[in-house]
Amino acid sequence: MFKFTYTETTTDRARIGRLETPHGVVETPAFIFCATKAAIKSVTAEQMREAGTQIILSNTYHLMLQPGADVVAHHGGLQKFTGWRGPMLTDSGGFQIFSLGHGSIANEIKGRQNSQRPKTLLRITEEGARFKSYIDGRTWMLTPEESIRIQHKLGADMIVVLDECTPFHVEKSYTKDSMEMSHRWAKRCLTEFVKLNENGQQRLYGIIQGGVYEDLREQGCDFVNSQNFFGHAIGGSLGASKEQMYDVVNFTASKLDRARPIHLLGIGGIKDIFNGVRAGIDTFDCVHPTRLARHGGALVKPASVEENTKEHINLGNQRFRLDNDPIEPDCTCSTCKNYSRGYVHHLLKANEMIASTLISIHNIHFMNQLLTEIREALVDGTLAKTEERWIH
Amino acid sequence: MFKFTYTETTTDRARIGRLETPHGVVETPAFIFCATKAAIKSVTAEQMREAGTQIILSNTYHLMLQPGADVVAHHGGLQKFTGWRGPMLTDSGGFQIFSLGHGSIANEIKGRQNSQRPKTLLRITEEGARFKSYIDGRTWMLTPEESIRIQHKLGADMIVVLDECTPFHVEKSYTKDSMEMSHRWAKRCLTEFVKLNENGQQRLYGIIQGGVYEDLREQGCDFVNSQNFFGHAIGGSLGASKEQMYDVVNFTASKLDRARPIHLLGIGGIKDIFNGVRAGIDTFDCVHPTRLARHGGALVKPASVEENTKEHINLGNQRFRLDNDPIEPDCTCSTCKNYSRGYVHHLLKANEMIASTLISIHNIHFMNQLLTEIREALVDGTLAKTEERWIH
Repeated sequence: MFKFTYTETTTDRARIGRLETPHGVVETPAFIFCATKAAIKSVTAEQMREAGTQIILSNTYHLMLQPGADVVAHHGGLQKFTGWRGPMLTDSGGFQIFSLGHGSIANEIKGRQNSQRPKTLLRITEEGARFKSYIDGRTWMLTPEESIRIQHKLGADMIVVLDECTPFHVEKSYTKDSMEMSHRWAKRCLTEFVKLNENGQQRLYGIIQGGVYEDLREQGCDFVNSQNFFGHAIGGSLGASKEQMYDVVNFTASKLDRARPIHLLGIGGIKDIFNGVRAGIDTFDCVHPTRLARHGGALVKPASVEENTKEHINLGNQRFRLDNDPIEPDCTCSTCKNYSRGYVHHLLKANEMIASTLISIHNIHFMNQLLTEIREALVDGTLAKTEERWIH
Repeated sequence: MFKFTYTETTTDRARIGRLETPHGVVETPAFIFCATKAAIKSVTAEQMREAGTQIILSNTYHLMLQPGADVVAHHGGLQKFTGWRGPMLTDSGGFQIFSLGHGSIANEIKGRQNSQRPKTLLRITEEGARFKSYIDGRTWMLTPEESIRIQHKLGADMIVVLDECTPFHVEKSYTKDSMEMSHRWAKRCLTEFVKLNENGQQRLYGIIQGGVYEDLREQGCDFVNSQNFFGHAIGGSLGASKEQMYDVVNFTASKLDRARPIHLLGIGGIKDIFNGVRAGIDTFDCVHPTRLARHGGALVKPASVEENTKEHINLGNQRFRLDNDPIEPDCTCSTCKNYSRGYVHHLLKANEMIASTLISIHNIHFMNQLLTEIREALVDGTLAKTEERWIH
């Protein structure tokens, strides 16, 4: 039911893979889109498929609070509940608990500053993490076992262990102690997973923590390699700059068992993906393409815009008012085939929420097209040339 | 390019028609959906087509203010701008000016009470209506000629004359004077229309005012019948109750030239449509199906729900939380084929805007299916039986 096979390429550690799941095959390298609360924001499952999507993920944290894992299970699991029916992954719930809890970890991991969110994390102990629901203030305890039980009920094909996401600003000793606790949590996850996965419908990913420290990352890799995980995900703080992130990703990926698929958590910039692919990453996920769309940002290749400094254009900008062209002239997504930049600009100005839908469809198609061209380039040995076409 | 043909049926004054336009054919009786600001809220043009839609309308009032008629003309007119490409109608701008202006006319015409909207109408004179933009407070003057010029730029197939929409609460003498001014405005519209429509790409509808007074309605019908309009639209106050509305519609429709298509402005309840069809109405429009959807309301036939008092169910209701069924078991829309009531309930609770999209698609498909079955029943002489299936 599950199988991961791959072919080496002539480009660094990049590889072309095939990840078989009970809900279909994912050709890798692949991008995983975020259906946070069991829905891609403003896009239907049909539109996701039409845009060439292979796999989506949902967040355990949000779904355990609303509608609750039992409700999703009652509806036959996420693939059926969402109408998506294809391959899916869930995260452990940890990232949001620690992110919302510390108030800033998502920003720190991604090198951003100054977030002001309410802190909902109450306490981390060896047992698990206690936190308050952002919906009704109720107290929850998420243990490694409970995370696996919830993910079992949600029913995604691939699920991940609960780990503590350590912030960037902490001492190395905290990162080390935290990683070691995460390893103990990972073993408890594995034990619970083996108990629940009798029908073999799911596979478990281990997570590598260790912050920006090579020795810790190496220990993290040794740990996951030694355990019976199906795949590995690179998590935790990747540093304060793109350069540091590339160093951490490259180093970590180089130490991982090549027989298992490697996922890079929460990273989805175009440059970042080219770097990740060369480092041997098989799958990526990020809210960026759909979140950007909701703010009027459309992903574009350098050829589609005059100035080529950014990876997107902001369609809310006045200069698109009379623009008859599609977002990208060479794009085959339904938005570019049917609508002009000027029309989308109007929709943004008129607060028509269909603007989000149209730009999201473009951005999703864009990412899928990017990964398709990367896979083709890896076969042909022409990744550098493809990179030129996509990188600003 | 334009042609209206019809066949009489054995059911009262009901008829089956065919309205040919440069952008396609509308089989009548038909429902026209409201793309207020050049977009159906939360639904793409592709989704509109898939849901069986024949024709949509946009509001001149909103578009003249944003993005402006010249911008739409620059983009090749509404059909191209919106990506819809099928038959379209625009209203004159009058309804919103007088509705927002008097602060309550939309409610009065439809028999609702207690609206609290800011009044933006500054002055009505023989020349036209002066009002303030709700976007930037700028003062505009809409004359009959200007309404036609704007609608010419917007480029819909069918356009309508500017008229004053008289409120329900005024004296009969005000309604009479207002109607007579609307007739003078209508003649000015016709003159301007003939000047601009050299290429024959548009057709003009006259509007019948006259409030709830049979003698005034009859004068209104005599007037439009005597003028060179392509079609007629029944407007103005239709009374304070459904019964009064049916009386006004039935009487007015009976006095209109049968050679021309007859539109009923702003009415779209299921019972109202059956009444209208029997009265000889060819097209209907109403924001109801899509507005209802944005509030979680899904249109249903009596067979689809236990209690059968209302024409819709509210999917935000807690009782749908564990409901695995589609909105309607016998519905073939993409929402009913792919998603359960329980999933849509979750989306509403989680504030996922795709809930609006999914319910809107159902409601649009529902209305199109209703009109399709009505047309079939008119051919077969079985309208009463069809009515039983659809009416609560």
